[in-house]
Amino acid sequence: MRIGAVDFLNTLPLIDGLEHLSDIELKRAVPSALIGELLADRVDIALCSLIDYQRSPEPLRIVPCGLLGCAGSTMTVRLFSQVPIGRITAVHCDTDSHTSVALLRVLLDEVHGLQPALVHFDARNRRVVETGEVLQWPETMLLIGDKVVSDSAPAVRYPYQADLGAEWFEHTGLPFVFAAWLAKPGNTAADEAGVILDRQRRHNNERRDGMMAAHAAHHGWPVDLARIYVHEMITYEWTEAAYLGAMRFFESACRLGVIDAVQPLEGVPWSDEVGCSS
Amino acid sequence: MRIGAVDFLNTLPLIDGLEHLSDIELKRAVPSALIGELLADRVDIALCSLIDYQRSPEPLRIVPCGLLGCAGSTMTVRLFSQVPIGRITAVHCDTDSHTSVALLRVLLDEVHGLQPALVHFDARNRRVVETGEVLQWPETMLLIGDKVVSDSAPAVRYPYQADLGAEWFEHTGLPFVFAAWLAKPGNTAADEAGVILDRQRRHNNERRDGMMAAHAAHHGWPVDLARIYVHEMITYEWTEAAYLGAMRFFESACRLGVIDAVQPLEGVPWSDEVGCSS
Repeated sequence: MRIGAVDFLNTLPLIDGLEHLSDIELKRAVPSALIGELLADRVDIALCSLIDYQRSPEPLRIVPCGLLGCAGSTMTVRLFSQVPIGRITAVHCDTDSHTSVALLRVLLDEVHGLQPALVHFDARNRRVVETGEVLQWPETMLLIGDKVVSDSAPAVRYPYQADLGAEWFEHTGLPFVFAAWLAKPGNTAADEAGVILDRQRRHNNERRDGMMAAHAAHHGWPVDLARIYVHEMITYEWTEAAYLGAMRFFESACRLGVIDAVQPLEGVPWSDEVGCSS
Repeated sequence: MRIGAVDFLNTLPLIDGLEHLSDIELKRAVPSALIGELLADRVDIALCSLIDYQRSPEPLRIVPCGLLGCAGSTMTVRLFSQVPIGRITAVHCDTDSHTSVALLRVLLDEVHGLQPALVHFDARNRRVVETGEVLQWPETMLLIGDKVVSDSAPAVRYPYQADLGAEWFEHTGLPFVFAAWLAKPGNTAADEAGVILDRQRRHNNERRDGMMAAHAAHHGWPVDLARIYVHEMITYEWTEAAYLGAMRFFESACRLGVIDAVQPLEGVPWSDEVGCSS
């Protein structure tokens, strides 16, 4: 089985330990890259950015053996700004992410009444993708993943910040799902992988503290923040509330034209027909 | 003449160049320490924290040959918090400052309706003064001076920030004065020093860019921020508005019991009798 997973600290509770299994091949990439791996059949199952489920050119299904989500602050899906949120006119958006950029558009529109210009930003290299311009401190930027912590900007540069998970929860009262395990409908290796992933996640539930002690530094995290993060911020399980949060997000994204239509989440236990199309 | 001055980047426009004058002895210290130097007659004139004028056990006068103030953001008088401003219960306050702590109390009370506990915090050594406890990231802290920039906390630690200069200006529409030149009434060397300081400040007005290019790095500042800082943020002149801002601050501080009474600002051209006593 070939499994594609995000190489962030927050993914460890989903996959740590799999490296000891001989019939598993783990492929690591940033969230936005994994959908390509899956569609090209280079992996059987991948932890993809959630919105890619709706945007996929061919139908996919959810394997409900874990997710990366939240029900409040995430710490690592974060808007940084030198101007007050209400005065934002453009956002440099981390190309590692698809779902977070869509979430940003939804929140800025629904909560703040803003439709800023979006600029593709290679945050690792501090480079504007279209122009190649190097820009150390964009006026406003969306960053995701470990770099929010491991390469945190000096606070003095960004007096205005917003945690997208916290804003979503305040706005809707619902959890949010950033990434989920996706597979192609006929792939039976994905079902086998799903069983293993489900077992490993349950096993890892009790091991999070030890994992953080062992791996936080390698990912550039202070251990104190890492523990709070995987215990109190990131969620790993499909629940009905998580399903409802995901659908609420898709409906908003659809209304805003971020996606063309909302497909039901095939594979998630509570999934049902839904009606929005833009 | 013995001149006591703050050793912050923002003080250079007031004092840079004085080191070439043979009859001037410059003594550098943090703002909160200078009042002690003046009262002990170890300097003739000192750039003291403004509130010390009101708290001094013996009468002092203002020598109106410059000040450190603002009419909006200061960048370097800054509240950092891990919780939203409205939920602050205690603030670790940088012991380098007197006036900023008083300003914090006024703003939290008048703007936010908060009277948090205040903890003396040796911010350079990250140590609680009373207990000796080392505390890297207090939940809420007030920092002043170069360390706000040169030792800026990682943004991820402090999602909530407030610039006290900006808050004051929004609240009152007036400038704020953080530090002013003080002297004892009978000291004639202070008058001579005042003439020299006045001339040097005027001379330095046109030299700020060069000063920042030459000295920013030594103070731990990026040059881009340093230029914005001394051109657009920090003000250096007594004006009627600066005087009114100072008096408005004293009246608020007096109402709140931070000072016992408001003395007129002897030496400032617009000074007049005032009425508040707590």
